[in-house]
Amino acid sequence: MSKGRFITVEGPEGAGKTTVVAEMKKQLESEGFEVLLTREPGGIDIAEKIRGIILNPDHTTMDGRTEALLYAAARRQHLVERVKPALEAGKIVLCDRFIDSSLAYQGHARGLGIDEVWKINEFAIESMMPDATLYFDLSPEEGMKRIAANKGREVNRLDLEGMAFHEKVYEGYQLIKARFPERIKTLDASGTVEAVTSDALQIVRAILED
Amino acid sequence: MSKGRFITVEGPEGAGKTTVVAEMKKQLESEGFEVLLTREPGGIDIAEKIRGIILNPDHTTMDGRTEALLYAAARRQHLVERVKPALEAGKIVLCDRFIDSSLAYQGHARGLGIDEVWKINEFAIESMMPDATLYFDLSPEEGMKRIAANKGREVNRLDLEGMAFHEKVYEGYQLIKARFPERIKTLDASGTVEAVTSDALQIVRAILED
Repeated sequence: MSKGRFITVEGPEGAGKTTVVAEMKKQLESEGFEVLLTREPGGIDIAEKIRGIILNPDHTTMDGRTEALLYAAARRQHLVERVKPALEAGKIVLCDRFIDSSLAYQGHARGLGIDEVWKINEFAIESMMPDATLYFDLSPEEGMKRIAANKGREVNRLDLEGMAFHEKVYEGYQLIKARFPERIKTLDASGTVEAVTSDALQIVRAILED
Repeated sequence: MSKGRFITVEGPEGAGKTTVVAEMKKQLESEGFEVLLTREPGGIDIAEKIRGIILNPDHTTMDGRTEALLYAAARRQHLVERVKPALEAGKIVLCDRFIDSSLAYQGHARGLGIDEVWKINEFAIESMMPDATLYFDLSPEEGMKRIAANKGREVNRLDLEGMAFHEKVYEGYQLIKARFPERIKTLDASGTVEAVTSDALQIVRAILED
């Protein structure tokens, strides 16, 4: 195999990303590809410790910009220690959430500004932008319904935000898609796992042929 | 008193900053001013924890950009929690090292690029740039001599860097001074503590009259 491919997966909570990427990995491996499935902080010691500061419930005075800088720092370390070596080894890296999540959640929904958050993330990732990004498109209403129905799933901090916040995230993703029309490929996430996986794999195959 | 003044103090190791700012605080307080003398992380819980990650000797894989983002995050939190409230209370804030240290040490001496490091620090501090910066000018040779002579002083990680590094830091500060000629006031740090303190206070008084 020649060089690796860096593919990130984005979208709102409840869009089925985790299930679909696990399916994708299985299929791609059965076809002989080497795949690294990861998400930040991905078990990287320094990145885990940074995440620990962000998520510590005692840190009630944490400023929004401090948080965004910490996310960017954890991203950088995960990228250097985990993603880069895998790409250099020729693997397909599937990364569940990456820079666009920061742009949508912190930049737009939390109001720090997409351009502002882009600035620090550009510093963090340098030129290592994803070869492609799969955007799981699902209306905020449908996403919330799925989360409510899926009792087995662990509820996280973002699930508990109100509908207005999830609508802001959705809006943020639309703005980011308009800004990176080449890189970001939209998937209809309202279908079955099989259908979405199949669509996603079709996009990945096109990239592998590049 | 009306609004506070934010004054940062910069310069190479061994330039006598710590001694002089302590003297300045004493004098200004004797004249009735309220003064906060601080340096990052300044006892701010979140900033201290971030600094703990940076300085942890186990973190041998720490990337230079991760480190720069962590410094910017700690700076932001210290600024919001400690500097800003003091300024709003009308105090004079004397901060030992601030944004220019990151630009000189990480941006120039470590080679990340002054513009690059500026970008993330601009995000961290927004519009809260210092009203003035006192730059303690001392040749790298003289600074090293002083450090070597001062046996009582705790030796830190940067003291152990070679002469070439300290020359790079010096060069970095010259570039930054050229970029911010209005804000950065140069002090001849080769004189006695009394002489340098007197020069520094003269600059601060001019700012207080503004």
